[in-house]
Amino acid sequence: MSSFEAQDPNFQARVTASFARQKMMQTLGARLTNISPGAVEIELPFDENLTQQHGFVHAGAVATIGDTACGYAALSLAAADMAVLTIEYKINLLASAVGSSLIARGRVTRPGRTITVCAGDIFALSDDLKEKLVANMLATIMLLPRRDDLID
Amino acid sequence: MSSFEAQDPNFQARVTASFARQKMMQTLGARLTNISPGAVEIELPFDENLTQQHGFVHAGAVATIGDTACGYAALSLAAADMAVLTIEYKINLLASAVGSSLIARGRVTRPGRTITVCAGDIFALSDDLKEKLVANMLATIMLLPRRDDLID
Amino acid sequence: MSSFEAQDPNFQARVTASFARQKMMQTLGARLTNISPGAVEIELPFDENLTQQHGFVHAGAVATIGDTACGYAALSLAAADMAVLTIEYKINLLASAVGSSLIARGRVTRPGRTITVCAGDIFALSDDLKEKLVANMLATIMLLPRRDDLID
Amino acid sequence: MSSFEAQDPNFQARVTASFARQKMMQTLGARLTNISPGAVEIELPFDENLTQQHGFVHAGAVATIGDTACGYAALSLAAADMAVLTIEYKINLLASAVGSSLIARGRVTRPGRTITVCAGDIFALSDDLKEKLVANMLATIMLLPRRDDLID
Repeated sequence: MSSFEAQDPNFQARVTASFARQKMMQTLGARLTNISPGAVEIELPFDENLTQQHGFVHAGAVATIGDTACGYAALSLAAADMAVLTIEYKINLLASAVGSSLIARGRVTRPGRTITVCAGDIFALSDDLKEKLVANMLATIMLLPRRDDLID
Repeated sequence: MSSFEAQDPNFQARVTASFARQKMMQTLGARLTNISPGAVEIELPFDENLTQQHGFVHAGAVATIGDTACGYAALSLAAADMAVLTIEYKINLLASAVGSSLIARGRVTRPGRTITVCAGDIFALSDDLKEKLVANMLATIMLLPRRDDLID
Repeated sequence: MSSFEAQDPNFQARVTASFARQKMMQTLGARLTNISPGAVEIELPFDENLTQQHGFVHAGAVATIGDTACGYAALSLAAADMAVLTIEYKINLLASAVGSSLIARGRVTRPGRTITVCAGDIFALSDDLKEKLVANMLATIMLLPRRDDLID
Repeated sequence: MSSFEAQDPNFQARVTASFARQKMMQTLGARLTNISPGAVEIELPFDENLTQQHGFVHAGAVATIGDTACGYAALSLAAADMAVLTIEYKINLLASAVGSSLIARGRVTRPGRTITVCAGDIFALSDDLKEKLVANMLATIMLLPRRDDLID
């Protein structure tokens, strides 16, 4: 799916460890389900606590896992001494986020030395495991030298 | 601050009631702090459960309150028989979301019959109540006739 | 490449005729090179009159052909009595637009009754016909009933 | 209007000289009408050669002057040894660009050492000089050390 090579052989452990430090991911109930070079997948089971007024998953939760999948897709290609920072993203909400869980897939479209761009798709999974596209996004991620206050 | 006039004299009760139905807002701990015609403010007190790996508020939470403030700014100008749906937004993350709370201010830049556009600014409030701009956003909201499955 | 079916059997003639009415396309020197259901390609030969200060093609020209390709990708799937209007787009400029020509490819990611979302990629073609990705975009297009002042 | 201070006392000459090197600006017929620290204005007289199929100014021309105004707003605050590069923008097209001319106003919302964010508004000017808002945009600009192939 991804045609990139990781610069840091340790990229999977690195993404996993960083994800575990994000308390927001635990609050939402999100989990990492795939880490490839330049592509990361996050799953979010449906939870009534994350809904908006119609009982669908809130666009904020949809965007949060999409943004996080994009950021980690960028991190998966970063050199060991570089950290990543999302500087902006844009998301199109295409359909109601209703189903048993959401799957966010972030992938690098253009890796860079300073700026990496990622595309993200978020799908709703129905009980019979059919995927429905619920959002498209584009995210811009900056690479910075790691420092004490800017870890993964 | 806002130069718009509400079409629905009941707009404040309407926004308040809809906000109360969003379980996600309760999960985050967000509250409505101002509703004017075309402008809505949401406050989110700092909560460790909403942090990313550096201990700052997760960009997802920042975007969620910004997006919600923009959506309700649009709803505040909607006719009584119309509902709103956010179809997309773009957010620039300008600075770390660190402080005692975050304030999201959404305002309509151009109200429309079918499409309303809003701008949002999110600020971090320090202990001495100084505001620091942490994000800018632009959101596109669609207006649709209300129906049973599309309430506020 | 595209898995959509056109509702209007006349979609190619319709896109071609509309493109011909856009004086801006002639001013830039752009031409339509492919029209499939849900996917449109536009080529823009390099022209010194379209450059920015470094001699590359101006981002404005890159975005213009990308935006136009996305709009026509949406139009290619529209019913015969509907018109399209781009309400917003976002573009990431990934690399300098330098080469013998640019190729913009717009494709529908989610067709809708009222809102269609398209993704666009713009490539620079070198003299040896190698493609380099220079921009990614996401565009939101509204569908409206055709009327005298809103033709294709 | 702008509360920023230029780092380079020569900022106006610098923006003016760079604008003059952009052949695309001459092709469109655009001209610089104001340069303040952190805020730049560009005017584009109506020209039939820049129209889309309904006879309005093409969204591509609207975006081009908006993007350029934002980029120069960022440049107006840059240190003398830094250059700017637009890495992405998002634009909402609010109304038909019809009138005797268009005015694009770009302003810095948050200046940075590496990343500067700008907001842009584009207005259509009618014959009686009334301004109508036709587009809102948000742009992300990167600052880089100047070098031979990256001049203003």
